[in-house]
Amino acid sequence: MSSKLIKFPVDRAIDIIPMGRIGVDLNANEINRPMEETETFTKYVGGSPANIAIGMARLGKKVGFIGRVADDQFGRFVVNYFDNETIDTTNITIDKDGAKMGLAFTEIKSPTESSILMYREGVADLKINPVDVSEEYIKSSKSLLISGTALSQSPSREACFVAMEYAVKHGTVVIFDIDYRPYSWNSMEEVAVYYSMAAKMSDIIIGSREEFDLMEALVDPKNTSDQVTADRWFECKAKVVVIKHGKEGSIAYTNDGEAYKVSPFPVKLLKSFGGGDAYASAFLYGLMEGWDIDRSLEFGSASAAMLVASHSCSDAMPGSKAVQEFIDKAKAEHGDMVKKL
Amino acid sequence: MSSKLIKFPVDRAIDIIPMGRIGVDLNANEINRPMEETETFTKYVGGSPANIAIGMARLGKKVGFIGRVADDQFGRFVVNYFDNETIDTTNITIDKDGAKMGLAFTEIKSPTESSILMYREGVADLKINPVDVSEEYIKSSKSLLISGTALSQSPSREACFVAMEYAVKHGTVVIFDIDYRPYSWNSMEEVAVYYSMAAKMSDIIIGSREEFDLMEALVDPKNTSDQVTADRWFECKAKVVVIKHGKEGSIAYTNDGEAYKVSPFPVKLLKSFGGGDAYASAFLYGLMEGWDIDRSLEFGSASAAMLVASHSCSDAMPGSKAVQEFIDKAKAEHGDMVKKL
Amino acid sequence: MSSKLIKFPVDRAIDIIPMGRIGVDLNANEINRPMEETETFTKYVGGSPANIAIGMARLGKKVGFIGRVADDQFGRFVVNYFDNETIDTTNITIDKDGAKMGLAFTEIKSPTESSILMYREGVADLKINPVDVSEEYIKSSKSLLISGTALSQSPSREACFVAMEYAVKHGTVVIFDIDYRPYSWNSMEEVAVYYSMAAKMSDIIIGSREEFDLMEALVDPKNTSDQVTADRWFECKAKVVVIKHGKEGSIAYTNDGEAYKVSPFPVKLLKSFGGGDAYASAFLYGLMEGWDIDRSLEFGSASAAMLVASHSCSDAMPGSKAVQEFIDKAKAEHGDMVKKL
Amino acid sequence: MSSKLIKFPVDRAIDIIPMGRIGVDLNANEINRPMEETETFTKYVGGSPANIAIGMARLGKKVGFIGRVADDQFGRFVVNYFDNETIDTTNITIDKDGAKMGLAFTEIKSPTESSILMYREGVADLKINPVDVSEEYIKSSKSLLISGTALSQSPSREACFVAMEYAVKHGTVVIFDIDYRPYSWNSMEEVAVYYSMAAKMSDIIIGSREEFDLMEALVDPKNTSDQVTADRWFECKAKVVVIKHGKEGSIAYTNDGEAYKVSPFPVKLLKSFGGGDAYASAFLYGLMEGWDIDRSLEFGSASAAMLVASHSCSDAMPGSKAVQEFIDKAKAEHGDMVKKL
Repeated sequence: MSSKLIKFPVDRAIDIIPMGRIGVDLNANEINRPMEETETFTKYVGGSPANIAIGMARLGKKVGFIGRVADDQFGRFVVNYFDNETIDTTNITIDKDGAKMGLAFTEIKSPTESSILMYREGVADLKINPVDVSEEYIKSSKSLLISGTALSQSPSREACFVAMEYAVKHGTVVIFDIDYRPYSWNSMEEVAVYYSMAAKMSDIIIGSREEFDLMEALVDPKNTSDQVTADRWFECKAKVVVIKHGKEGSIAYTNDGEAYKVSPFPVKLLKSFGGGDAYASAFLYGLMEGWDIDRSLEFGSASAAMLVASHSCSDAMPGSKAVQEFIDKAKAEHGDMVKKL
Repeated sequence: MSSKLIKFPVDRAIDIIPMGRIGVDLNANEINRPMEETETFTKYVGGSPANIAIGMARLGKKVGFIGRVADDQFGRFVVNYFDNETIDTTNITIDKDGAKMGLAFTEIKSPTESSILMYREGVADLKINPVDVSEEYIKSSKSLLISGTALSQSPSREACFVAMEYAVKHGTVVIFDIDYRPYSWNSMEEVAVYYSMAAKMSDIIIGSREEFDLMEALVDPKNTSDQVTADRWFECKAKVVVIKHGKEGSIAYTNDGEAYKVSPFPVKLLKSFGGGDAYASAFLYGLMEGWDIDRSLEFGSASAAMLVASHSCSDAMPGSKAVQEFIDKAKAEHGDMVKKL
Repeated sequence: MSSKLIKFPVDRAIDIIPMGRIGVDLNANEINRPMEETETFTKYVGGSPANIAIGMARLGKKVGFIGRVADDQFGRFVVNYFDNETIDTTNITIDKDGAKMGLAFTEIKSPTESSILMYREGVADLKINPVDVSEEYIKSSKSLLISGTALSQSPSREACFVAMEYAVKHGTVVIFDIDYRPYSWNSMEEVAVYYSMAAKMSDIIIGSREEFDLMEALVDPKNTSDQVTADRWFECKAKVVVIKHGKEGSIAYTNDGEAYKVSPFPVKLLKSFGGGDAYASAFLYGLMEGWDIDRSLEFGSASAAMLVASHSCSDAMPGSKAVQEFIDKAKAEHGDMVKKL
Repeated sequence: MSSKLIKFPVDRAIDIIPMGRIGVDLNANEINRPMEETETFTKYVGGSPANIAIGMARLGKKVGFIGRVADDQFGRFVVNYFDNETIDTTNITIDKDGAKMGLAFTEIKSPTESSILMYREGVADLKINPVDVSEEYIKSSKSLLISGTALSQSPSREACFVAMEYAVKHGTVVIFDIDYRPYSWNSMEEVAVYYSMAAKMSDIIIGSREEFDLMEALVDPKNTSDQVTADRWFECKAKVVVIKHGKEGSIAYTNDGEAYKVSPFPVKLLKSFGGGDAYASAFLYGLMEGWDIDRSLEFGSASAAMLVASHSCSDAMPGSKAVQEFIDKAKAEHGDMVKKL
């Protein structure tokens, strides 16, 4: 099957507008020890949709962003960083009520064990206001990517739904990256309610098996079948549903009844996080290039493998040539990672 | 046309479960003066879905309720009142965190001029929690009525959406009474977003022209056509859409393309509020009895006329015999109030 | 001894400025039943310092007020009421952020059993702002009365301390009426801390034994001696300390080492609340008239007796002639109520 | 004159208990540039009373602490650090409601220009609860140091006043380090009210001219005289008042009418902050050693000079031998810094 199932509108100035979390990552430089004993941290742009924006810009796409940043040094840092990456920052608003940038201090205890200390109280990115969402901006883009954490609190939640309403109205493809983070939500019922609402309005849905379970907790709490899950959303508006299974790899279902599985590329891990955003940006890049699902999946999986071997989740995003070289080399060594189910 | 378009499930223990606002009305006894000069107030049960519950119980229906009340004298007052009306109160939870009953002090300056002084800060009815919503309870009812004000704040908002998800899952008819009250909402974008979400899941939608305008402010802000509005929701799940035009009367659209208009019965007004809930309960009563739309509309309009001539919005709800007698007398005097468009 | 110990400044335009709570009382008309079964309520001005203001105005004093009211019918009601009583309302500010008047629904189950259902969430009277406190106003008054509930929350708490600082600076006599109401405070430690701070700055302190216990919970938690309590505050700034013992009557200690006890006048109770504010206003009236402590106490006790036999806590405040007539009649019947200890 | 004016109680297990702010400083490693361009940060313990605790421990005093920390890696980091410095941490409580450690990101644009980006929203140190304050602990210490920022919000504010009440009750010397930080306060009236209350209960008061101006804004807003200021607090309980004038040096007033001025030691600045806490700890060390005021001032000033030449505000606190060597060398080069006024 071909990703032609997804018809991206043509003649639009922007390829993709990620919307939601943007913050500052402070990654421990002294690794393989608990954060209590860390001495220094390196500063990076962070936040899942921000990482995806950087990833797609590095791959050559025209990228916008809808978000809100602090009126301070860290707010200016991330906007400057985006500007340098040629990401359009005209729709990033500056919070004038003292909200701060979210912080994520990451400790790397071992290649497989890490934790994140979050500063997310009253953060700027959850203050995006519905009135800050420009209908014209969304109309000028081929796609809109909603990152699930942006649905966790008002007014960011309503801003996302407004953006999705505009996208549906103007034929902008809606991508929903579930990105569940427990710290922002008030109850599991809220999670189920708002994830379902977003999924009903989306063309492409990407999440882990656990994230889809959260989403269908009310309507089908006992389901464990990926196919049943995918079919549920195909009955609404979705055309591609990607369900991730950690080290087992991930499966892309399409609404023509097909499914492709990709296994992770073998790689020496530095850390156990950051791969997902690379995966999403490279996979979506493939779809926007008009590639088949299997090639897009391979591209996503390769980019993810490159990221987990790097110190940052944003600054290390690869260009398309580097990803292709990684794929060529890895396939020569390990064989094909994608198969049709 | 026949209201048979709406298929209420059979063999269910409860006819209707209104959900949302329940409070205490304190109506000025000294009327035709401003509230500054009022000396005494009479206490009634209040809140739109509570009034509808009482209205339908008086008409002989088996009525439940999903709501939350204060753990104080006023909370016990409303539950006692419901018990006396044979309304099932098993799914009314008692707030243990000190929330109070909402209050509505009403002044009647003249038969056409009145105002309401609301006490709605941190009220119990907006604290209904998603975990308080019983799937079994909703499954045991023929219909669920969501009152729009319950969507204005969390966690009541999510509780409503959970209830609607369960209703859709089990074929319980969803009725959405928009009931817009400006004091509870944070922004007009929120109103549009959540009203639209509720409308998409509803079988019957009832509101004023102004309320429908609020609902479609994002997707079709310039529309003034009732038919366009009705058709929008027929494309989702709705089968009956009622749009009210104040003194001009109201129109019921059905998804088989027909429309009926009812004009208000001439009546000597005591006050300018309270008619809507009587209208909704008597109209829905007609539909549940299997009556045609026109007869149901006439019944609703008659009950509304009786209410605006009374001091309370709840205690004065009429039984079906009284409504029929009112209709017979009024039609003899004024002629037919309903016509097919 | 003579109340000359308290030197009220002369040549000032205002006799007393009470500061703090002002609200609306809604008293059940159907008494001797629980509020669940009450049908109607009568509306009065309420709140301890508001009652004292009315009491002193009725006794002929020039009364001001520092407070904050809602921008609604109830806010206008209390200001109109004060204006009619010739209380100066120029320093009552109107809240523009939607705060409401506090409400007190009173039920009278029996002459000795009653309860109050309070609406105090986000009330206007606790929003008095320090910047609303006029140094000139306090300088123009002989005395300032701080009602303890006004210390329970910010910014009212700080406004009171600012007012007391100005009073101390300009020789305005500071009266502290402890008036403890549990619903507004966050912790008993707060109560002890802020009551002590206010008491240190006060010339006259009035409270029940239980209220003084709360005040000295940190510094002398085991003390039960009224004399020890009085002496503690005489070491600071106090000259008169009144400690109430419910039906046992109350004792006034003066910093020249004397003490007078007054027993309650026998009276047929209608309700068990409202006497305290009448007591305070008539007692303070006596002191301002230059009367001896014993006569002032008698006057206070008589006014209290008259109030508990009435339906309201404000509207029933007596004039000085009525109080004197009550005293003359009661003493003829029951003998003297005051004795020197 | 001799600092014998301050009588520290003898036979107590602890020399000093600082109370209040404790957080994490993240100091830019790449200096002389704005924080937008900073790449890495080094982590230190921070917060004025925490710095003073470390300073006094390094000088050989037995130090306790009353504070509250987060239940996370940063909370454990600061407690571990204190333990290593032999500071008693038994009265540091761990917040179980998710409060985070305050963060201070410092940028050093030039030796004289720097700024701090604070994360102080809902921080653990302002959640110290009055019930966490142990009367026994304060009774077991010679002195209690209250840092002014701890007065900026509830419940920390009340906890401090409770601690001061206990200290006064048991003869523990109260030291008030004004330490004004604008970000935590709601209004300048609050600042004036609570600073005055703390000052009235204190034996030693340390602050800048600007901080004393804030404190007397209500009672004497036009005063510019240090002597008038010092005399005001001598009339309450104070025995030593230190007023700082930035680069002009600082003056210590004593309640026997004397005053000593100390000028800053010439030193090559690395940064423009951090000197105050070193000054306070070394000055108080001198007083506790029974030194004269002039020698204590010199010691404080020398320690301050050493700190502003270092990268951290805590980790660089010197021992007494190092301070003395610095003084000997500096005086040989620059002459005496202290003079009697």
